[in-house]
Amino acid sequence: MNENKYPLITNARDSRFLTLCSLQTPHGRSRTGLYIIEGIRHLARAVEHNSSIESVFLEPSVLSNPFGQKLVRRLRKRGVPGVRLSQQLYRDLTLAAEPQGIGAVLRQRWIPLSSLRVEPKSLWLAVESIESPGNLGTIIRTAEAAGSSGIFVLSRDCDPYDPATVRATMGSLFSQTLVKCSPNEFTSWAKLNGVAIVASSPTGLMDYKALRYRFPAVLVIGSEKCGLSGQLLEAADFMVRINMRGGCESINAAVAAGVLLFEMASQKL
Amino acid sequence: MNENKYPLITNARDSRFLTLCSLQTPHGRSRTGLYIIEGIRHLARAVEHNSSIESVFLEPSVLSNPFGQKLVRRLRKRGVPGVRLSQQLYRDLTLAAEPQGIGAVLRQRWIPLSSLRVEPKSLWLAVESIESPGNLGTIIRTAEAAGSSGIFVLSRDCDPYDPATVRATMGSLFSQTLVKCSPNEFTSWAKLNGVAIVASSPTGLMDYKALRYRFPAVLVIGSEKCGLSGQLLEAADFMVRINMRGGCESINAAVAAGVLLFEMASQKL
Repeated sequence: MNENKYPLITNARDSRFLTLCSLQTPHGRSRTGLYIIEGIRHLARAVEHNSSIESVFLEPSVLSNPFGQKLVRRLRKRGVPGVRLSQQLYRDLTLAAEPQGIGAVLRQRWIPLSSLRVEPKSLWLAVESIESPGNLGTIIRTAEAAGSSGIFVLSRDCDPYDPATVRATMGSLFSQTLVKCSPNEFTSWAKLNGVAIVASSPTGLMDYKALRYRFPAVLVIGSEKCGLSGQLLEAADFMVRINMRGGCESINAAVAAGVLLFEMASQKL
Repeated sequence: MNENKYPLITNARDSRFLTLCSLQTPHGRSRTGLYIIEGIRHLARAVEHNSSIESVFLEPSVLSNPFGQKLVRRLRKRGVPGVRLSQQLYRDLTLAAEPQGIGAVLRQRWIPLSSLRVEPKSLWLAVESIESPGNLGTIIRTAEAAGSSGIFVLSRDCDPYDPATVRATMGSLFSQTLVKCSPNEFTSWAKLNGVAIVASSPTGLMDYKALRYRFPAVLVIGSEKCGLSGQLLEAADFMVRINMRGGCESINAAVAAGVLLFEMASQKL
């Protein structure tokens, strides 16, 4: 295998290994603007979307998949730096349930608010504060599938580049337009660009199916436990509710996002 | 606190403790027909729904919540048996991320196929094989919120009483009608009772929003990786698709269940 030419790291104090480990932490990610992806499927989608791949890491004895090996050869040919990790170091680093022996370091991609273009019928998503990284990833994947033009992240605690989030996006992170800004900046942007803010709340006046949405529109999703903040509820142009049956108080935030986004997307057509 | 009168277990070889631990495994659950719930919210909902609570377990130093303490007193008054666990044993047993010092053993509740009543406009769900226990729990919670009359579990590997599943249902497990049967028994039941089988597939002929569903109806959800089996695809009366945008191949199984079930539920009204 050609990827054997990547240098081997066996020492847990090697600075390259320590850098990799630091990217599994929020601090390491915010300090460097980098993040880690794992697995063949994610790496293939990153390549497909021309994501900015800084380096790769391998554990050749685990990487038996021929397609994965081909990917590595391709990246090496392109001059992407990389390292091989010893079995022990790879095990210490990986967070994958079924590690495939391959991962990469990518540069985070944040789009400035000022460079967004608002198409007439565009659909957007804003997440105020999602506690579960897995839920956030599922929401990003859902937004992509519903044809969202971009996702606003309105809270510092919400990190789309968290490893559990990245995993749950199933590769749809790479093509998403991600914007980080404050709730204030977000609502100003929406008002200035004529983007209708749609919020969902158990006390919403209209059933989400009864409303004819005005486009462009942005759906705002709040925290699983507390819902949306007062500020965003107040800024909302439309407040809808999903009727619950059977004594349920709520549904999962990602499921709610899916139900609402796919309804809105279907009205756009 | 009254619950201090429950006997204290400090020995990891105590048979009562070993029984509790065994219920965290598939084998222990299937052997006994019991399962474990954890946390105040789940226990309160179990009481509310008159679930069959076999016993409770506590760690009094963790259980500081007054509502939780009141719950325990109420159960003790009713004669529900219980044990107190030492800090160490409780830590060894609990799977909760933020343990609240309380849990219970409940009897699984499976309804025989023969005793189901099919109302004219009823909506049902069948899960063929969901790999992720958390996904399964979110699907059960979603089905409850969409007003499902019952859930068919068509695979042995799919366990609604898995601790991660129970947790993700957020208490909506207790009011659900659960039926375990083979795919054959399920399709016979559906045909016999005039229940339309609705399947979703990327190759479905109609957009899920374009179809006028015939009720009673049952939505069948397949595995996250492989979708539905040939047998169920063949048995389906309607095959719909959710259109994906942005190069997405699929959405999360629980999100798909939500999008489809809420569309079907809204047509029922």
